[in-house]
Amino acid sequence: MLDTRWACPPFDIVRAAHAELLVTDLERAREFYVDLLGFVVTEEDAGALYLRGYEERLHHSLVLRRAREPAVGHLAFRVADEADLEHLAAFFRSEGCPVRWLEAGEEPGQGRALRVQDPLGFPVEFFHAMEPAERLLQRFDRYVGAHIMRIDHFNLHVPDVQSAYDYYKRLGFRCSEYTATDPPDERLWAAWMYRKPNVHDVALMNGAGPRLHHVGFWVGDTHSVLRACDILAAANRADVIERGPGRHGLSNAFFVYLRDPDGHRIELYTSDYYTGDPDFEPIRWSVNDPRRGTFWGHAAPVSWFEESSRVASLEGGLMDLRPALLNQRPQTVT
Amino acid sequence: MLDTRWACPPFDIVRAAHAELLVTDLERAREFYVDLLGFVVTEEDAGALYLRGYEERLHHSLVLRRAREPAVGHLAFRVADEADLEHLAAFFRSEGCPVRWLEAGEEPGQGRALRVQDPLGFPVEFFHAMEPAERLLQRFDRYVGAHIMRIDHFNLHVPDVQSAYDYYKRLGFRCSEYTATDPPDERLWAAWMYRKPNVHDVALMNGAGPRLHHVGFWVGDTHSVLRACDILAAANRADVIERGPGRHGLSNAFFVYLRDPDGHRIELYTSDYYTGDPDFEPIRWSVNDPRRGTFWGHAAPVSWFEESSRVASLEGGLMDLRPALLNQRPQTVT
Amino acid sequence: MLDTRWACPPFDIVRAAHAELLVTDLERAREFYVDLLGFVVTEEDAGALYLRGYEERLHHSLVLRRAREPAVGHLAFRVADEADLEHLAAFFRSEGCPVRWLEAGEEPGQGRALRVQDPLGFPVEFFHAMEPAERLLQRFDRYVGAHIMRIDHFNLHVPDVQSAYDYYKRLGFRCSEYTATDPPDERLWAAWMYRKPNVHDVALMNGAGPRLHHVGFWVGDTHSVLRACDILAAANRADVIERGPGRHGLSNAFFVYLRDPDGHRIELYTSDYYTGDPDFEPIRWSVNDPRRGTFWGHAAPVSWFEESSRVASLEGGLMDLRPALLNQRPQTVT
Amino acid sequence: MLDTRWACPPFDIVRAAHAELLVTDLERAREFYVDLLGFVVTEEDAGALYLRGYEERLHHSLVLRRAREPAVGHLAFRVADEADLEHLAAFFRSEGCPVRWLEAGEEPGQGRALRVQDPLGFPVEFFHAMEPAERLLQRFDRYVGAHIMRIDHFNLHVPDVQSAYDYYKRLGFRCSEYTATDPPDERLWAAWMYRKPNVHDVALMNGAGPRLHHVGFWVGDTHSVLRACDILAAANRADVIERGPGRHGLSNAFFVYLRDPDGHRIELYTSDYYTGDPDFEPIRWSVNDPRRGTFWGHAAPVSWFEESSRVASLEGGLMDLRPALLNQRPQTVT
Repeated sequence: MLDTRWACPPFDIVRAAHAELLVTDLERAREFYVDLLGFVVTEEDAGALYLRGYEERLHHSLVLRRAREPAVGHLAFRVADEADLEHLAAFFRSEGCPVRWLEAGEEPGQGRALRVQDPLGFPVEFFHAMEPAERLLQRFDRYVGAHIMRIDHFNLHVPDVQSAYDYYKRLGFRCSEYTATDPPDERLWAAWMYRKPNVHDVALMNGAGPRLHHVGFWVGDTHSVLRACDILAAANRADVIERGPGRHGLSNAFFVYLRDPDGHRIELYTSDYYTGDPDFEPIRWSVNDPRRGTFWGHAAPVSWFEESSRVASLEGGLMDLRPALLNQRPQTVT
Repeated sequence: MLDTRWACPPFDIVRAAHAELLVTDLERAREFYVDLLGFVVTEEDAGALYLRGYEERLHHSLVLRRAREPAVGHLAFRVADEADLEHLAAFFRSEGCPVRWLEAGEEPGQGRALRVQDPLGFPVEFFHAMEPAERLLQRFDRYVGAHIMRIDHFNLHVPDVQSAYDYYKRLGFRCSEYTATDPPDERLWAAWMYRKPNVHDVALMNGAGPRLHHVGFWVGDTHSVLRACDILAAANRADVIERGPGRHGLSNAFFVYLRDPDGHRIELYTSDYYTGDPDFEPIRWSVNDPRRGTFWGHAAPVSWFEESSRVASLEGGLMDLRPALLNQRPQTVT
Repeated sequence: MLDTRWACPPFDIVRAAHAELLVTDLERAREFYVDLLGFVVTEEDAGALYLRGYEERLHHSLVLRRAREPAVGHLAFRVADEADLEHLAAFFRSEGCPVRWLEAGEEPGQGRALRVQDPLGFPVEFFHAMEPAERLLQRFDRYVGAHIMRIDHFNLHVPDVQSAYDYYKRLGFRCSEYTATDPPDERLWAAWMYRKPNVHDVALMNGAGPRLHHVGFWVGDTHSVLRACDILAAANRADVIERGPGRHGLSNAFFVYLRDPDGHRIELYTSDYYTGDPDFEPIRWSVNDPRRGTFWGHAAPVSWFEESSRVASLEGGLMDLRPALLNQRPQTVT
Repeated sequence: MLDTRWACPPFDIVRAAHAELLVTDLERAREFYVDLLGFVVTEEDAGALYLRGYEERLHHSLVLRRAREPAVGHLAFRVADEADLEHLAAFFRSEGCPVRWLEAGEEPGQGRALRVQDPLGFPVEFFHAMEPAERLLQRFDRYVGAHIMRIDHFNLHVPDVQSAYDYYKRLGFRCSEYTATDPPDERLWAAWMYRKPNVHDVALMNGAGPRLHHVGFWVGDTHSVLRACDILAAANRADVIERGPGRHGLSNAFFVYLRDPDGHRIELYTSDYYTGDPDFEPIRWSVNDPRRGTFWGHAAPVSWFEESSRVASLEGGLMDLRPALLNQRPQTVT
């Protein structure tokens, strides 16, 4: 099920780098992300906000773009070198995937970039160059909200986790943890995969897809997570707290899941662990282990398992959904 | 509904001081309270454990006593002076309540004490003298478990909150916060009452009673609460985490509720506030305010609303239950 | 040395309630207290700022008043009842202390008040009534800076700690901890005394006096203390961090000492303990115990031992200083 | 001064992996590292203890070996592949460095390894294979002491930082931050260099060398650092707290430095940042910036600048010391 020999593709993906979320009301989105959670605005124009966390030294890790309906514009990975982009273009062409080049500056602050509709149906961007922005890590006098540090990962709903796993493996991703259905018919239910050496840059979960389940942002400690909840509740926005705070069994992270005004889900995430050793062995969880999702045994709400953000097609409109291959849902649901 | 002129009785109750819980398996109870949560054992004999927190300088704040069925043996308040005991005896006799004296040492470590079956049906003890025990507040090298500091409060299920409120008011308790049903038929649904100047020594909640809903223990910070959950889950005892962790709207405390092996409920509780000013005004919450219970909007499980510990009769056996006067339950229940 | 029979005066002092600091530049003071530390402004006029913490429900706990030279305008205690003021006036007149009445509103937000030059030379105010202000405890969306919760205590430099102790004992204060020089010539070097049941409302330290060593403000956790340091350093004001952060041996509090732009010292203070039990025994520390000041053994700077704020005379100008009776200084000084 | 074009050597060093400290009293060392700080014992024999942190999944990250005098036995880096060892052997032979092979098991739990006396004079080991040990990351019920997670870095005193920097650059290390003397005679005073993408695996500081300044261990949060101090002080070992707790300007980490019973220095270290991006630019600090060492402006003690652990020679005895090239010491010293 899990081939753990690692691929060595001719390109070097560094990490999950930014997400573009399409939102229907930019001012409501600003209130949520900037006023309440404390994201930093690097740049804005009539149609979009370019945001970053306090630790980040690049132009943006989150783009909010005004649109008629909520969706994911694209998800971006940074590559180690400009030359990697050509290698990636060749790879995706050979896969028969739609490919489009963005010129430098076409996305504000960003160099030349490659957009693809990947084999899973996601609109994915690869880029190397991005304008620097002031790193505010030690500007503690400017910290507000949930003290968002940096983007950490994307979590994707895919109909066929095994094939999605195989695809990301070919991109050079390694697996830190995974969830499987129980023997005898053991099937891969979810996988956490990484390029930077913590638990993940991308998680793949069984569900109708392609859809974005959530974008994870790193915060520095449990206090930041609790404080996010306190701030939201104080501002009469407790309704956006969908799940948590709690400790994940899988990943060991302390987390909370929030829903933005368009229903996009983000996770505030902290305290997972180092995975960079060459012999790191993926950790297996049964889909029915009550400690898998929340280590403390709390059930997740149905919405958390079923709702996700639709993703854009490079040709306009939204990508069609395919149903999940596995019907089994974890038993630890409310 | 809330008469806030304060009584000035001829006795001075200092604070909630200890609880005696009857448990069916003393070793299982020890594992929960001592091995996992880190309570300190002051003394033990064949039938009981006498426990305290790290800040406490008296012999015990929790007694676990072996019995055939789980119940509350008694709940104890400390009084300012030995003479207060006689005044209290007179008060309860005039109320027609059963009264019994315990000689010094009859409860290990404790001086002469008064036991009563109070007008609400609870077995309550009043005492002044207790043997000192080493205060371990600065023995950080001995801290284990959830870093339990001290007992904080009792929470009681009573059938008629208004009359229970009136009774505790006569004992000299003040009210910090309360819950009421919505107008026009506004009724008192719960009340938090104190002698020491934080949110409460006793909470009174609408429900079949007399029953003990929980005993609250103070911990020093949110870390201790989260760590308790991590420890319990690591020891495969996540099932005892009934509700939380979370922030209470009412009291502002950060909390988690745990069920011991006999089903008795304890709360780990921290960061409420000072109530000692003479003009402190009770804070009103609607029973239907979703932020009342958990400020972040989380629903409490049905078990939390319905299950409680039966209490002992001074004459042996358990006190009979009377049904709750109000049928309304908060809407914020799973 | 320490008479621990407690006085029962005919008045009831509730707690340390506010301080008035005279500052030479109100805008610089505002930047420090409001912009950096996050105190809430209740009211301001051309000559003064009236501030409070997030937990406080009264008009002010800190007044910053413009003056030609830095000094302490007055230190105020709240009393339980208006009638207590007359009893206090009688007490101070019998002591031969200068006494002055302030009419309601003479200090904004405050009812009728009694000002005295107390036997130690401090300008002290007693009041009962104060206008309410919105309590912001659960307005987490408005928290900024160091998350100051409430005033906690005053720390005073007095030439003769024993006589200052005896005086405060007559006001009904109890002693939680004290520092003594070593036998055979044991002398009282410092004392921590309380009315509200935590470690202190007033500390008395050996030194030239009358001078105010610092005003202590309560914060909710160690994070708030560390964050105050981070914020100040980020704003290039690390020079105001005089001592700490650290753990006190005496009081067990986690603390940091800051100097405001006029040199007034404040302490951010958290996690001491409950002292309300009738048999609480004062804890003795040797002036030479290295764990007394900072439990971790850190030496305090000389400035911390020698510098303090002069106090105003009710008749105008500053009170004269008398030298400390004891020459011995703790050995744990840099 | 800082050539930031990165070398691409024919071997792949993964990270700082373990240190072997020679100690004169193994039981005293055990008390410090195991009983007080909570390191986990994987294996022990008459002459040595093999320790790890709670997150670690390998046999050891710290070896304490009994010896006649305190010194550093060796410092070890893990490599990505067995084949890297031969490449490294060739590299060091070409540098004229003494080289020695250890067979698998010669160091308990470890595969074949290469020991060299590197060009800076340090006894350094490279290895790929190590036996797994149980990862205790989620065994929160077994956490004690300072909750040590994993080894993070070595900090070295070297006489000539520029040449040490050039050497580590050739090994493929990158620079995250550095300290320079002020222009016009700008010289490299210290450098922080990494393979794994956080601030460092190795820091190089100006001083008589070769000596080990400290080994840094990662802890999960500021609480763990504060708790280490509380535990040590409670056990009457506050004397081992040499510097901090505090926030570093350089690295942004929250830290404390401790001295073990033989004078070896360790750092508890948390909350630095991600450095894995290809265009990460080293951050420059002036040696005279008061926020460089402790962001809050605290001076470091002289001992911290001058005392370090001597290192072993592969031929027996200790390596000779050479004096520091730069005389300038940061001004922020007590």
